[in-house]
Amino acid sequence: MPNPQMKGKAAVLVAGSWGTALAYVLACNHYEVTMWTRTEAQAKEISTQHHNEKYLPNRVLPPNITATTNMQQALSGAELTLFAAPSSAMRQVAKQAASHVEAGSIVVHATKGFEPETLKRMSVVLSEELGRAQSEIAVISGPSHAEEVILKLPTTVVVAAEQEEVAEKAQEAFMNSSFRVYTNNDVVGIEVAGALKNIIALAAGLINGLQLGDNAKAALLTRGLAEISRLGVAMGASPLTFIGLAGVGDLVVTATSQHSRNWRAGYMLADGTPLNVVLERMGMVVEGVKTTRAAFQLAAQYGIEMPITEQLYEVLFNDQPLDRAIEVLMGRTKTNEMNN
Amino acid sequence: MPNPQMKGKAAVLVAGSWGTALAYVLACNHYEVTMWTRTEAQAKEISTQHHNEKYLPNRVLPPNITATTNMQQALSGAELTLFAAPSSAMRQVAKQAASHVEAGSIVVHATKGFEPETLKRMSVVLSEELGRAQSEIAVISGPSHAEEVILKLPTTVVVAAEQEEVAEKAQEAFMNSSFRVYTNNDVVGIEVAGALKNIIALAAGLINGLQLGDNAKAALLTRGLAEISRLGVAMGASPLTFIGLAGVGDLVVTATSQHSRNWRAGYMLADGTPLNVVLERMGMVVEGVKTTRAAFQLAAQYGIEMPITEQLYEVLFNDQPLDRAIEVLMGRTKTNEMNN
Repeated sequence: MPNPQMKGKAAVLVAGSWGTALAYVLACNHYEVTMWTRTEAQAKEISTQHHNEKYLPNRVLPPNITATTNMQQALSGAELTLFAAPSSAMRQVAKQAASHVEAGSIVVHATKGFEPETLKRMSVVLSEELGRAQSEIAVISGPSHAEEVILKLPTTVVVAAEQEEVAEKAQEAFMNSSFRVYTNNDVVGIEVAGALKNIIALAAGLINGLQLGDNAKAALLTRGLAEISRLGVAMGASPLTFIGLAGVGDLVVTATSQHSRNWRAGYMLADGTPLNVVLERMGMVVEGVKTTRAAFQLAAQYGIEMPITEQLYEVLFNDQPLDRAIEVLMGRTKTNEMNN
Repeated sequence: MPNPQMKGKAAVLVAGSWGTALAYVLACNHYEVTMWTRTEAQAKEISTQHHNEKYLPNRVLPPNITATTNMQQALSGAELTLFAAPSSAMRQVAKQAASHVEAGSIVVHATKGFEPETLKRMSVVLSEELGRAQSEIAVISGPSHAEEVILKLPTTVVVAAEQEEVAEKAQEAFMNSSFRVYTNNDVVGIEVAGALKNIIALAAGLINGLQLGDNAKAALLTRGLAEISRLGVAMGASPLTFIGLAGVGDLVVTATSQHSRNWRAGYMLADGTPLNVVLERMGMVVEGVKTTRAAFQLAAQYGIEMPITEQLYEVLFNDQPLDRAIEVLMGRTKTNEMNN
């Protein structure tokens, strides 16, 4: 006999820390959650030991989260399908999933970043691979360390979809008393803000490493936000999205947290360690480095002035000395705050 | 023979930490700066010892900053007159200054807060007392710890005036290679943002004291910013000002710094210490407490929903338990991010 509290099935692909934390939220909301993992070992760890030790150490998952490497089994009957693959793997995962996603399933993704080769947004990649209209694909974003979500500390996020009904269904699925979900319809803005904030996080680590102070860090965050919103607006976003949870909110949590990989990479660069050495020491992907290159290209493509991104690009890839980069930024011609 | 480097005279009233830091910036830019102080002792300390020990400990001021208690002497011949009195004293200082301000002097103020009794903005108070059009009065604001400005650490601020020429003249006077000044024409937005951010700083201290985590703090900053911009827009501000240096920038620096009095008061309240005990222990004005009351009144007056301000008001003045306030905020009805 089915548990009357149970709402239905949800699928989550793949089991990184953020995907697992969102699976946890859905499980708390009485969904029967099936995660799709790449390896049998991870599937078994989640299904039988109720752990995902590599991505969420020391946390027990509830029994209504199981995992499988069988895509059809993961997706069959799911009312909600959540894609949380890294941006570089999204297309491949979507391709594998395409024929198994239920026609009536709400599709949401939780991935921050552009596809590296094409600079496409994640909802575009999903739309192409799943053969589903972009307007039916939702994105969830906002200031949310996975470690805090799984401790049920108060967290707020935003779910955006062009079709209001899609966003509202996703809101309904995720919202609970410690996880507050707002809707929004600006998918472009939410996706661009989520991707580009890693540039500012990297630069924030640099500012901290150089001991330039709180005024400089606040200047970076604010003027960084101004330039990523300029690019976002050129790409079709609403400027107001950047003042919201996926903009300011996520920027604050990423750029002021020493847990952020991007922040740590910037901090290490500050003492003159070359980029290749920093990346080697990190041993993990530092999204902000790739995103700086992507934003530099997009800025040229859309004809947008992005002085911070440009200087960071020069520092990372053209040996621009740090003090010279600061000098250039502080010495720019006099301007109005609302121009550039 | 006058020093050919010297630009002209500037007057600064009064010699608190922010006023003194801005006097320092003007002095670096080759102005002959005269500060007006309330006491002979402070005037003498600045003029002869080149110190302002109470407000900027351990810092030496340049010889082209002097001070006097004689209002006429301070203001005579000044090309720029900067008012940096506390919000509660602004009217009184302006009244005393009125007959001595040079007709051609650029008038700028650097004070965050409303007049307590009337809830008037500072440029309105100055306009009334100086008999000068509001459009000719500029405000300087932004993320700027005085202690860092005087160390010449990179700092960015915004100067706003309705008359572009006034803002540009003030920009010209203050800008240098470590103090970058942007112009803006949204005086209402800059003043409202500067006053109301202290509410969020107080609440941020509470969140930290309660150990609710980084997600909750980012939620508070973002949703707090959303509600102060709603009030600002109702009062005539542009929403985009709140994404700028006087909005996001100042909020980040105030709400994440343990040096902020408002943050510290919130932190002390978190363990259940009653408000009167906290205020007594602080021994100084905690602007955020008065501003919470002012914003609560303004929200009612303008018919704006401000859930965070409202809960903080209930906690401060009506014994609302903290966990109940969090519960109310997290349990609000489902909404769109751009509504309320």
